[in-house]
Amino acid sequence: MPEQITLYTAKICPWAHRAEITLKESNLPYKRYEIDLKDKPEWYAPKISSVGKVPAITYGGPDVSPEDPSPESQKLAESGVLIQFFADLDQSLLPKDPFTRAKARFFIETASPLISGAFLGAVTRGENPEGVLTAIEAIQKLLPEEGYAVGEWSIADAAVTPFFARAEVAFKNDLGKYEEGKGKATWAKLETDEKYARFRKYFADLKSRKASKRHFTRT
Amino acid sequence: MPEQITLYTAKICPWAHRAEITLKESNLPYKRYEIDLKDKPEWYAPKISSVGKVPAITYGGPDVSPEDPSPESQKLAESGVLIQFFADLDQSLLPKDPFTRAKARFFIETASPLISGAFLGAVTRGENPEGVLTAIEAIQKLLPEEGYAVGEWSIADAAVTPFFARAEVAFKNDLGKYEEGKGKATWAKLETDEKYARFRKYFADLKSRKASKRHFTRT
Repeated sequence: MPEQITLYTAKICPWAHRAEITLKESNLPYKRYEIDLKDKPEWYAPKISSVGKVPAITYGGPDVSPEDPSPESQKLAESGVLIQFFADLDQSLLPKDPFTRAKARFFIETASPLISGAFLGAVTRGENPEGVLTAIEAIQKLLPEEGYAVGEWSIADAAVTPFFARAEVAFKNDLGKYEEGKGKATWAKLETDEKYARFRKYFADLKSRKASKRHFTRT
Repeated sequence: MPEQITLYTAKICPWAHRAEITLKESNLPYKRYEIDLKDKPEWYAPKISSVGKVPAITYGGPDVSPEDPSPESQKLAESGVLIQFFADLDQSLLPKDPFTRAKARFFIETASPLISGAFLGAVTRGENPEGVLTAIEAIQKLLPEEGYAVGEWSIADAAVTPFFARAEVAFKNDLGKYEEGKGKATWAKLETDEKYARFRKYFADLKSRKASKRHFTRT
């Protein structure tokens, strides 16, 4: 019997989404508990995540209600740490070959800040959405000719999917602090320009995963 | 026979130092090649590290001179990625238990930016060196009652050692862009105040490692 995992997450949070995609792709049983980030339960910070952030998990200990976490379970936070932890528990989430594993981690460390920085910069700070195009050009260079970030699907793909998915929704609807029209124009380029063909294939592959479909449908 | 590893590094760089400490602690054979960051060899960026940064490695391929890297070897960069790669190759560098491994990664993700941010902020941007005290108080809370970051020595300790070591040398000699005297005053507090007793023990433990001694002596 594997130890219990309870994931504290929030639909709105791309970092939490990384952990959720990974668990959905895994064979690990888990419970999901939505935290309202605008109105966090009083018990959340003291009992689960000292800084009150999502995602976080409880691991092991007795089978209790997520709203009444046991002091006997272990607590863990930070999306990058969580997805690697899940990959240590379920070895289907990261390739076995050491160098390919290293390439997956390199992708996480390199591609994630590029896309999250450009996307969040546009939406929350009004930077030009075209920064996302620059990020995507750089990310394309890290991708193999076909397949996922390191060939087979891995946590490297879970790390970036939430940002691409949110960029699509935000830009297609021109949601964000940037100049009106720039979101739609940016996404139109991504959808038509030959320069972004590799990204389009990669993003379509990411969206074809069952884990993604379920999430996107529910949103 | 393990694959060859050549580490391209620079004494001055704390990030490169993380990789070097890890290799010294490991059972992995490797060659070390010093890169002069102020006068990088022309072949370095095109053949080893596209952005020209240290640390980077070549892995596998024929046994060649570091100055004439083979196109047949694989190339890898980013200190956080490298130390995890070494831990995949030599399992003595990270505990086997999945949750302890996760705690080591949590320490790397949390403690490293605290100490590197505070130290580099003081030295390169003239911020108050006392920021390092705040960082160290937070890091102390992550440490177990005794031993290293997760008990036994691991790559979590390799990730932070370079910053503590450089802070000691810089502050004791008041080197940096901050107000004169503040470096010495800050380090004196660390050395005497009861509040930092756990850090003092931890830092002494880190410095007692053979890998550290060799590096510190050579510097």
